[in-house]
Amino acid sequence: KKQYRIAVIPGDGIGKEVVPEGLRVIEAAAKKHGVALHFDHFDFASYDYYEKHGQMMPDDWKEKIGKHDAIYFGAVGWPAKIPDHISLWGSLIKFRREFDQYANLRPVRLMPGVPSPLVGRKPGDIDFWVVRENTEGEYSSVGGRMFPDTDREFVTQQTVMTRTGVDRILKFAFELAASRPKKHLTSATKSNGISITMPYWDERVEAMARNYPKVKWDKYHIDILTANFVLHPDWFDVVVGSNLFGDILSDLGPACTGTIGIAPSGNINPEGDYPSVFEPVHGSAPDIAGQGIANPIGMIWSGAMMLEHLGEKDAAAAIVTAIERTLGERTLRTRDLGGNADTTACGKAVAEMV
Amino acid sequence: KKQYRIAVIPGDGIGKEVVPEGLRVIEAAAKKHGVALHFDHFDFASYDYYEKHGQMMPDDWKEKIGKHDAIYFGAVGWPAKIPDHISLWGSLIKFRREFDQYANLRPVRLMPGVPSPLVGRKPGDIDFWVVRENTEGEYSSVGGRMFPDTDREFVTQQTVMTRTGVDRILKFAFELAASRPKKHLTSATKSNGISITMPYWDERVEAMARNYPKVKWDKYHIDILTANFVLHPDWFDVVVGSNLFGDILSDLGPACTGTIGIAPSGNINPEGDYPSVFEPVHGSAPDIAGQGIANPIGMIWSGAMMLEHLGEKDAAAAIVTAIERTLGERTLRTRDLGGNADTTACGKAVAEMV
Ligand SMILES: CC(C)[C@H](C(=O)O)[C@@H](O)C(=O)O
Ligand SMILES: CC(C)[C@H](C(=O)O)[C@@H](O)C(=O)O
Repeated sequence: KKQYRIAVIPGDGIGKEVVPEGLRVIEAAAKKHGVALHFDHFDFASYDYYEKHGQMMPDDWKEKIGKHDAIYFGAVGWPAKIPDHISLWGSLIKFRREFDQYANLRPVRLMPGVPSPLVGRKPGDIDFWVVRENTEGEYSSVGGRMFPDTDREFVTQQTVMTRTGVDRILKFAFELAASRPKKHLTSATKSNGISITMPYWDERVEAMARNYPKVKWDKYHIDILTANFVLHPDWFDVVVGSNLFGDILSDLGPACTGTIGIAPSGNINPEGDYPSVFEPVHGSAPDIAGQGIANPIGMIWSGAMMLEHLGEKDAAAAIVTAIERTLGERTLRTRDLGGNADTTACGKAVAEMV
Repeated sequence: KKQYRIAVIPGDGIGKEVVPEGLRVIEAAAKKHGVALHFDHFDFASYDYYEKHGQMMPDDWKEKIGKHDAIYFGAVGWPAKIPDHISLWGSLIKFRREFDQYANLRPVRLMPGVPSPLVGRKPGDIDFWVVRENTEGEYSSVGGRMFPDTDREFVTQQTVMTRTGVDRILKFAFELAASRPKKHLTSATKSNGISITMPYWDERVEAMARNYPKVKWDKYHIDILTANFVLHPDWFDVVVGSNLFGDILSDLGPACTGTIGIAPSGNINPEGDYPSVFEPVHGSAPDIAGQGIANPIGMIWSGAMMLEHLGEKDAAAAIVTAIERTLGERTLRTRDLGGNADTTACGKAVAEMV
């Protein structure tokens, strides 16, 4: 029987506080469903590591974590102490690029017991996935500045979309849509304003759609699409977008379901050539770090996504159900949800429900 | 006493239906407040014109409308009949660029009688402006495709930000913030992911802020900013963003106030070297065009913005008050707001309230 090897990287801020609770719940589910897990803990990809070593990760980081079955990641970044282009680009974005985690997958689901900020929406009304391209697009490093410090100064930055990059994320999204009862895919575009890359994206969506005759698909410009997330969140099933559009939609979606504090995500290398990273959508939250009050649900739910990715569907489902019950019973909740439970109490409650 | 010359361009679809109602209300307000207006009507910037002439506008369009005091514009575009890159880039975007309308200004205001999709928000809770850069940024035409129809195919498109372009929109936004009671400016960025142009934007915001010591300012990454529009719309006073970010926020904002059907906008050349364009945020809406059921409030409110821009504050305020009363009394409303009044009835009702 296979033992999965998981690399655990708490990172910064509340990452360090929510990871132990995530592990607590994962272990409870693994035990119950006979899943054998081995955890290796790493202190890099954090400001503390950077302070000691002058870089975010050791030179041999790929050897250290590249053979694991998955990476369980807290959060990274502390803008007041270290610029994002060092902390994020030196860890999180490196993982995504160098481990070719081209699919960023985030559920938008209204959970029982979590009030939606949208009038009249109940659990079941909002339940879709955002699939985000995670390696190219608007997050390129091609560009620069000319005529610095003069009136003629300008900067440029290229959005880059490759056939390989676009087609593989679309394939991933269409496959996901095809596997769901509604079989509905929505593509985020802005081809009326962004006149070169976005029409190309549309063209590839149309080409890919021909391989999936059973999937109904539509597209919206990103401006009206964000409006429709608020006005008609029940319209969506699988929403696919470029790196930037997917980033926006996967924060806006969770906001429409009440809080980004409980949303999970997977940075997935679908071929399994490299480990995938599972992390909450929220960041390191320096403002509340160290107080033990962070909501661990995003981290715990990311654990369920990790088990699902490993093929351990029962253990994964057990965690999601435990989250739903804990939230739904409304007896125990962290401050961001109007309660006064601390991080550990919340983690323990979910672990007991598993 | 000055007579203002207004170029009226209904354009396509419901543009043709809402413009007459807008004019009805503008004329009522002008009469009451002694404002002298002269209207010149133009049929170009429409699909009909394109069908006859093979182009969206006559060669001498700038001579025809370039000396007017303002342009009152319905909507343009009909994707099923004519591609956006011809219709929009041949009219609307041409105006913005060639008349240097670098400030796109859109109110986000929860109006009486219009239910917000957000739980518990009342008129007064949501009341801010989105200021959008309207000439450069992500809407560039620099880029292209290489290795077409091969596996190596890729496209690139540059985002271009010039010192001139960024500084003037920031100045406009800071001036607006300085003129408001809250004196609060929020900048939309994404410098943690878009690593060249967005840090430049942030740098110019910081520099500009030094000229406005009385304005409190903050910045959010666009992903969490869209989330905060839903979760905390009361946080905002003036929000400034690049062409793309401003586009997104100025559709999402109106959605949070119930509908984009009533939102107005100004495409403003602040120096007055060229006419500014006033148009509703909604488009030509081919799906409901020709039925006389479109909501004319966005067009009417755009008329108020036009009068305000011309310096006719009383006439402008009278229109906004008339809109608020018509909506607030809930007796007469178009279908999109749950009533059954047609476009003309709604226009007449507002005109009578003026
Ligand atoms: C029609 C389109 C090109 C336009 C834009 O993106 O600028 C519209 O969405 C707007 O906001 O005025
Ligand atoms: C931290 C930041 C670079 C990152 C992104 O934009 O990708 C984050 O917002 C996310 O969504 O994972």
